[in-house]
Amino acid sequence: MIRVGIIGGSGYGGGELLRLLAGHGKAEVFAVTSRSSAGCPVADAHPSLLGTTKLSFTDREAAEVATEVDCLFFALPHGETATRMAAVFDSAPDVRVVDLSGDFRLKDAAAWESAYEREHPCPDLVPEFVYGLCEANRKQIATATRVANPGCFATGAALALLPLAEAGRLAGSVVVNGVTGSSGSGAAPKAGTHHPERASDFRAYRPLAHQHEPEITMALADAGAAGFRLAMVPHSAPLVRGIFTTAYVFPDSPLSAERLREIYVSRYGPERFIRLRDDSPRLAVVAGTNWCDIGVASRDDAVVVLSAIDNLVKGMAGQAVQNMNLMFGLPEDEGLRFPGMHP
Amino acid sequence: MIRVGIIGGSGYGGGELLRLLAGHGKAEVFAVTSRSSAGCPVADAHPSLLGTTKLSFTDREAAEVATEVDCLFFALPHGETATRMAAVFDSAPDVRVVDLSGDFRLKDAAAWESAYEREHPCPDLVPEFVYGLCEANRKQIATATRVANPGCFATGAALALLPLAEAGRLAGSVVVNGVTGSSGSGAAPKAGTHHPERASDFRAYRPLAHQHEPEITMALADAGAAGFRLAMVPHSAPLVRGIFTTAYVFPDSPLSAERLREIYVSRYGPERFIRLRDDSPRLAVVAGTNWCDIGVASRDDAVVVLSAIDNLVKGMAGQAVQNMNLMFGLPEDEGLRFPGMHP
Amino acid sequence: MIRVGIIGGSGYGGGELLRLLAGHGKAEVFAVTSRSSAGCPVADAHPSLLGTTKLSFTDREAAEVATEVDCLFFALPHGETATRMAAVFDSAPDVRVVDLSGDFRLKDAAAWESAYEREHPCPDLVPEFVYGLCEANRKQIATATRVANPGCFATGAALALLPLAEAGRLAGSVVVNGVTGSSGSGAAPKAGTHHPERASDFRAYRPLAHQHEPEITMALADAGAAGFRLAMVPHSAPLVRGIFTTAYVFPDSPLSAERLREIYVSRYGPERFIRLRDDSPRLAVVAGTNWCDIGVASRDDAVVVLSAIDNLVKGMAGQAVQNMNLMFGLPEDEGLRFPGMHP
Amino acid sequence: MIRVGIIGGSGYGGGELLRLLAGHGKAEVFAVTSRSSAGCPVADAHPSLLGTTKLSFTDREAAEVATEVDCLFFALPHGETATRMAAVFDSAPDVRVVDLSGDFRLKDAAAWESAYEREHPCPDLVPEFVYGLCEANRKQIATATRVANPGCFATGAALALLPLAEAGRLAGSVVVNGVTGSSGSGAAPKAGTHHPERASDFRAYRPLAHQHEPEITMALADAGAAGFRLAMVPHSAPLVRGIFTTAYVFPDSPLSAERLREIYVSRYGPERFIRLRDDSPRLAVVAGTNWCDIGVASRDDAVVVLSAIDNLVKGMAGQAVQNMNLMFGLPEDEGLRFPGMHP
Repeated sequence: MIRVGIIGGSGYGGGELLRLLAGHGKAEVFAVTSRSSAGCPVADAHPSLLGTTKLSFTDREAAEVATEVDCLFFALPHGETATRMAAVFDSAPDVRVVDLSGDFRLKDAAAWESAYEREHPCPDLVPEFVYGLCEANRKQIATATRVANPGCFATGAALALLPLAEAGRLAGSVVVNGVTGSSGSGAAPKAGTHHPERASDFRAYRPLAHQHEPEITMALADAGAAGFRLAMVPHSAPLVRGIFTTAYVFPDSPLSAERLREIYVSRYGPERFIRLRDDSPRLAVVAGTNWCDIGVASRDDAVVVLSAIDNLVKGMAGQAVQNMNLMFGLPEDEGLRFPGMHP
Repeated sequence: MIRVGIIGGSGYGGGELLRLLAGHGKAEVFAVTSRSSAGCPVADAHPSLLGTTKLSFTDREAAEVATEVDCLFFALPHGETATRMAAVFDSAPDVRVVDLSGDFRLKDAAAWESAYEREHPCPDLVPEFVYGLCEANRKQIATATRVANPGCFATGAALALLPLAEAGRLAGSVVVNGVTGSSGSGAAPKAGTHHPERASDFRAYRPLAHQHEPEITMALADAGAAGFRLAMVPHSAPLVRGIFTTAYVFPDSPLSAERLREIYVSRYGPERFIRLRDDSPRLAVVAGTNWCDIGVASRDDAVVVLSAIDNLVKGMAGQAVQNMNLMFGLPEDEGLRFPGMHP
Repeated sequence: MIRVGIIGGSGYGGGELLRLLAGHGKAEVFAVTSRSSAGCPVADAHPSLLGTTKLSFTDREAAEVATEVDCLFFALPHGETATRMAAVFDSAPDVRVVDLSGDFRLKDAAAWESAYEREHPCPDLVPEFVYGLCEANRKQIATATRVANPGCFATGAALALLPLAEAGRLAGSVVVNGVTGSSGSGAAPKAGTHHPERASDFRAYRPLAHQHEPEITMALADAGAAGFRLAMVPHSAPLVRGIFTTAYVFPDSPLSAERLREIYVSRYGPERFIRLRDDSPRLAVVAGTNWCDIGVASRDDAVVVLSAIDNLVKGMAGQAVQNMNLMFGLPEDEGLRFPGMHP
Repeated sequence: MIRVGIIGGSGYGGGELLRLLAGHGKAEVFAVTSRSSAGCPVADAHPSLLGTTKLSFTDREAAEVATEVDCLFFALPHGETATRMAAVFDSAPDVRVVDLSGDFRLKDAAAWESAYEREHPCPDLVPEFVYGLCEANRKQIATATRVANPGCFATGAALALLPLAEAGRLAGSVVVNGVTGSSGSGAAPKAGTHHPERASDFRAYRPLAHQHEPEITMALADAGAAGFRLAMVPHSAPLVRGIFTTAYVFPDSPLSAERLREIYVSRYGPERFIRLRDDSPRLAVVAGTNWCDIGVASRDDAVVVLSAIDNLVKGMAGQAVQNMNLMFGLPEDEGLRFPGMHP
């Protein structure tokens, strides 16, 4: 059994790790930290876990927990993981680390500082991390010690566009229209997630300025794409879970519906967690699961790719477990096999 | 492995059976029938199952499927199961049957005909069935061949009131205020589940006249309660899943908060699927799971019991699997152990 | 034109007053106060008002505004109005006051202190206020200078039960099962109104202990009812607007469906804002309006009355405007005539 | 008073016309037709109108009603208006007609037949209609007898892009990402608006193939745009009301944030029903109203325009009333002045 530690376990990402690991046959959670909830049963923060775990939160330091576990998940807010990482590397150089925050995703420190609007606490550690987009970087992850788990919008958009990037079909302006549920804003009440304001609303935020945009660009460039420029607008929908991506591509030469589908079938056919749909993917159908559902459409002048994921699973904790599975040589879908609910 | 057949598998109950049995280590679905969808992959009707099953719907007769399986689930509309049951009993007298419809729940045929407003197709077969409220009738279920799976409102209300019924504390008028999600209306679009009408609405229906009221009365009387009369009003909430019950009891003599809690702790402490909450149970916390969460409150003159279940799981397919587990001597929670999502 | 001042205008109650008064032909808002938003356009707090008002918030004292207006609405949190009232009475003894808080509703100071769990700042001023349940106290309101606007649950429940109270048919235990939308919790984000937690949830809160319970009892006793005892449980639904009340009454002697309906038709037939429905009232149908829709059902042993109101309109700002209309001798429905949306 | 007839009044468009005209000081509804509901009070189909109208549906022919009214609104499904129009023109050549369907919007009959996938019943009558996008065609509408009311997606997208079209800044591929609430699918229950399927879902439909795409292209070309090509994908959100448009434009030369805003301020400053927002428009804020809220953002390579309307008001019945006001020389905002609700 893999011994697991979770640093920052009282938020939604931590709760989802606990839920998924409860059904994982090869890993066991050994410690979950939380400063604000130290001493409380984890079921106080995650009421759905009552009766399924006896764990309580601890306020031990990450560097200390690291010495007692095989795998350490960081589920802290952006900027906080990075301040703890050097100590972890010192105390437990071999512990496997999966970081759910954005701190180690962008290879380009300047891009990071511009996207996250602060100075990076440890830019020299960034190169240590492999970008954990499993479907793209499976081999590097398998031998990595440290993985930067992709962002939720980045996962949805990169998986939507990866086959076109690899096929060299991205060109000019590429639009990524993203839609997210409210759980992406975290467990702390905020104005934008106040139920009376959110329940019947739809709005955009940070148009052309979201921090996941450079991350998507990096992931697609790593896959071989060049000569394109993203334009991304994220939106808040009255949903709890999900990231829906509508990507618009205008290839240099027409891409027939048949050829387009072929590209996706051949690229994603073997993928365990990607399903190609005949019609549109649906957020309700992937909620709670590690699936990424994808649909494609084309016209002589334009290609549209649609993807649907659960932001907290494939876009966060599920992908993190998938990364752990890869790092430890387990079946990639261990603990992640269950189908979603309908309705 | 238990070989399972599902009669009427294209609705929400059938889909939920398929989802739960996909994670059941000791049972395997062998056939799923549907007249309307015969020949289609089950994932056409249940899109969340795509990639997890290769089953297609068949239009074979229940009596025929019965001869090839160990356990037969009926997930047909009320009134339709009963018309097929005699043939099943003839062709496969030993097959275990779990009926999710209301056809065999009420022992009193006159009560059934009044509640369901039609003539019963086979009143002589009704005594063959054990009422499958696991927490009340565990022993009878374990030796039964045929089980009538309780209704969703009935499950929520009976589990809320069972300890008081057994303790002889029900008296006079007992109020059952029920609230349901839209999935209880089934997979076919209807006026009452048209999204524009339902999404921001709350309303009552069939006040003092719902068909689950006699079922609850029967379950509580079987537990020893006498001298009480239910008043039940069900309501439609803008939720997909869940049954929330608020039961008001006015005992003949005061019941202190401590004594009330004691009654519930001692009765439900050993129960695998019942959690006693310090505050109110929440539908969001039990959604997708077989849990029944319960909360209690009292004042000198009144007692309130709150319960929350998922109508399609503990109120339907999950309880049906729990019944199957009991009938086949398996761990009662086989296939049902996973925690719920939060949020 | 009636000159209106609003004290505490940045919350949902204040916003709703502004919305309703924007369409009121005989009143005009002269000043709106808010400490936190002083100097900002009211459309910053109430974005739907952009383009319809040029008002900005002021931080002037209530007692000062009182000297310049004909009618002063208080839309402050419970406990805050009371601390300002003596000064208002001093500076402007004749100004009409409508208080939307709970500070002056309960005639019994001990009941108030028990319900609101604090000491009342000015118990001697309480008798100055008329309880503003228009349908019950129309005459007193018409000649009153100061009105305590009823609470939202209290309005829904009192209007549901008033005809039975007046007819002397309340007896024994009377159940008030209340359901509220999230806007009742106010404009500040809280754990209970965090969208990820609320959007698919339903739960009870303060069972048998809500502060509106003594208010309802008082309103019904004032209408002549005696010998009954309320048992009230409020619930949070995934709705923005609305209070749905399901009241259960067990009369000493049977009340036929015909006689029950007759009681409601004769009592409410002349009422401008009450509609008797053939089936259940619906929250979606009254949202945004001053209507209270009511439905009734009975059986030999039990009577059920259902009511639906918008908590921010008939349960708050709309009723407050209705009170103002009565106090100033205007048509009772001035500014409140518009029908609701559907869907 | 303008005498109004509504042909096909039992759907959501008809109900919204009735709601808006109930508050219109210069028009009165004289007849409302519905074949399916003939003889029933309109409040049966539109429960929010109970107590505010005594009208019943009639099954009289449009051509007959036309002879007795000044203004005739058609709120029939696509394809049905056109079959009745010749008879109306014959019987009442001077009656003002506002058609809410898509039958007479597209000037190009071939484009219509391709978009609506059927043969046009009366292509020769199409030129008789003025396209009723008030903000673009105000002068022609004022002198028109027959107006084709724009589609909901078309209204949202055309208003978003009109200033850039007029300024000659549309170029190359222009993306229109549209999001709609469920009321746009009409009052009849359908699979796509079944609450259990829709409530927590988000999906695309008809990608690159929606019938409003040629309508938007026409409206923008009429405003002077050339050399651009739309790529539109509509989406279904778990909302009842609203159309949110996110338009992406890649101008030939950079457009600074200042210049962009200037273009919108100068074009829309005088418009009664358009509000330029500093941040994103929000569907919740325009729901129920005739407002179109707009936001803009730009980067060196890309421009984004966001618009929010209520699909049944500004995208349908409200715009229809605005058209009627223009045709009859009334203030353009007569009956449409009320602000929206918040929250």
